Amino acid sequence: MADRVTINEVGPRDGLQSQSRMLSVSQRLQLVRALAAAGISRIEAGSFVSPKAVPAMADTDKLLQSLDRRGTASYSFLIPNMKGYELARNAGAESVTMVIYASEIMARKNARMGMADAERAAWKIIDLARADGIEVIVIVAVAFGCPFEGVVNPGTVHDIATRFVAAGIHRLVLADTIGAAHPAQVSALLTPLARHHGPGAFGCHFHDTRAMALANVYAALTAGVRWFDSSIGGLGGCPFAPGASGNVATEDVVVMLRQMGLETGIDAAGLLAASDLATKLTGTAPGGRVREWLRGQLTKSESRKL
Amino acid sequence: MADRVTINEVGPRDGLQSQSRMLSVSQRLQLVRALAAAGISRIEAGSFVSPKAVPAMADTDKLLQSLDRRGTASYSFLIPNMKGYELARNAGAESVTMVIYASEIMARKNARMGMADAERAAWKIIDLARADGIEVIVIVAVAFGCPFEGVVNPGTVHDIATRFVAAGIHRLVLADTIGAAHPAQVSALLTPLARHHGPGAFGCHFHDTRAMALANVYAALTAGVRWFDSSIGGLGGCPFAPGASGNVATEDVVVMLRQMGLETGIDAAGLLAASDLATKLTGTAPGGRVREWLRGQLTKSESRKL
Repeated sequence: MADRVTINEVGPRDGLQSQSRMLSVSQRLQLVRALAAAGISRIEAGSFVSPKAVPAMADTDKLLQSLDRRGTASYSFLIPNMKGYELARNAGAESVTMVIYASEIMARKNARMGMADAERAAWKIIDLARADGIEVIVIVAVAFGCPFEGVVNPGTVHDIATRFVAAGIHRLVLADTIGAAHPAQVSALLTPLARHHGPGAFGCHFHDTRAMALANVYAALTAGVRWFDSSIGGLGGCPFAPGASGNVATEDVVVMLRQMGLETGIDAAGLLAASDLATKLTGTAPGGRVREWLRGQLTKSESRKL
Repeated sequence: MADRVTINEVGPRDGLQSQSRMLSVSQRLQLVRALAAAGISRIEAGSFVSPKAVPAMADTDKLLQSLDRRGTASYSFLIPNMKGYELARNAGAESVTMVIYASEIMARKNARMGMADAERAAWKIIDLARADGIEVIVIVAVAFGCPFEGVVNPGTVHDIATRFVAAGIHRLVLADTIGAAHPAQVSALLTPLARHHGPGAFGCHFHDTRAMALANVYAALTAGVRWFDSSIGGLGGCPFAPGASGNVATEDVVVMLRQMGLETGIDAAGLLAASDLATKLTGTAPGGRVREWLRGQLTKSESRKL
């Protein structure tokens, strides 16, 4: 498995939006810069949503315009709809991230429209983005399990994949939104998809709710997936529920990939610095499960590249 | 993967021996009984070692003689040498567990003899045990990585396996003693072993030090392994190092297996009761990573069988 894996860092968006402590734009920028400095090549840096609905993501346009776009990192921004797309485009975004749904009830609860309508809305934006030269990443929410509908029918995800991959979408990220996936399920879903469409079209987004995130990452890796969303310090879990976990921590994924001989281009000392910064800024980032182990390694070793 | 997996619970031995709080024989017995009541079929209930060296395991003969041997659980006891074997046999043990080594330095540090001598000592006991009608489980310590020698040569483990499996040993358990294994390594080691000798001869013992224990369990499952050591509440980690983890928690393994459709025969409510008891008795058992999730499930659902 000696090849390259892309870490798509979602902490500055998915992570920060659920924190109790609200960060200023300059603090958010500081975190994004620390992540880029660690060598993380893809960062979901914010979202263009109503500041009333998600105050933590207010002024993402100012953040975007302060980013150094000449570095090695590229930045994507979550958009909920056409208005969000226009805001992102007008602010100068080069990549946007959109959510569609593999469950009807989840679509209605989250987007207040059915699955098909949510997908239609995505297509309109994809067409515009293509004309505008903007990359689109599509997240399939609840691709494995839904809190309302239970285990999701793999056929639904296969149909979605066929439509989006055939249309040449940059990346289709299958998200285990509620941390319900198990590794045999990940393997059963991803292996035929990757065989049929090529693994390069896919990414995975796992939560560590039931401690299976790394097992799921491994199962997706064996299917050929080489793009994983993760969140610095595990940001995005509920900060008030002891033991509850949200997004899998970037630290945990990177350490496992490194041990497996897969290259991420991420510098260990830089990652640790970003992790410590995330905890300092939010006061709540759990820090992942291997941060202290990693810190111990760095004091022992000259080998910093992960 | 719809079949049966054996959980070999090591908390009452591997877990309790490293706790700061020493339990009485009747407390240890209470824990073992709670584990058996949960439906766990194999329990490493204690060890026959010098009480000076490991005071937490003193009076294991008394514990053994108080066990209900008519139930569904069978009990094994760790023995370090011939003297331990004789003590276990004289106390009425029906199964003993021994340790050999996949690293020369680790053997010398731990057993004060070389790998070959440790193996020779094991063979003598195996021969005796066969005559005595006592089962022997052999643990290969540091089968994946050694703190002194680094990554262990798979050829060493293959050679050990060939000798022991050919001799009809009941179970050869490959132990990731320091939590250094990664899932690709587990798959690369176990897949050919299981193909050559059949998966039934093997077991795996993982630590969650780098958060990869469940990923490693999954990798071993895909190779066909159906025997896993685990420790209730994750007992066996260092209780004073925040974030440090030792043995993978039984709760975590059982929840993953259940979600994958693999049967363990373990009752969820009983497992939770044993987990709470382990924490109450030791004051330090971390409880694994899914205990609170499991507790939430039990209040929601009638389905208690895991």
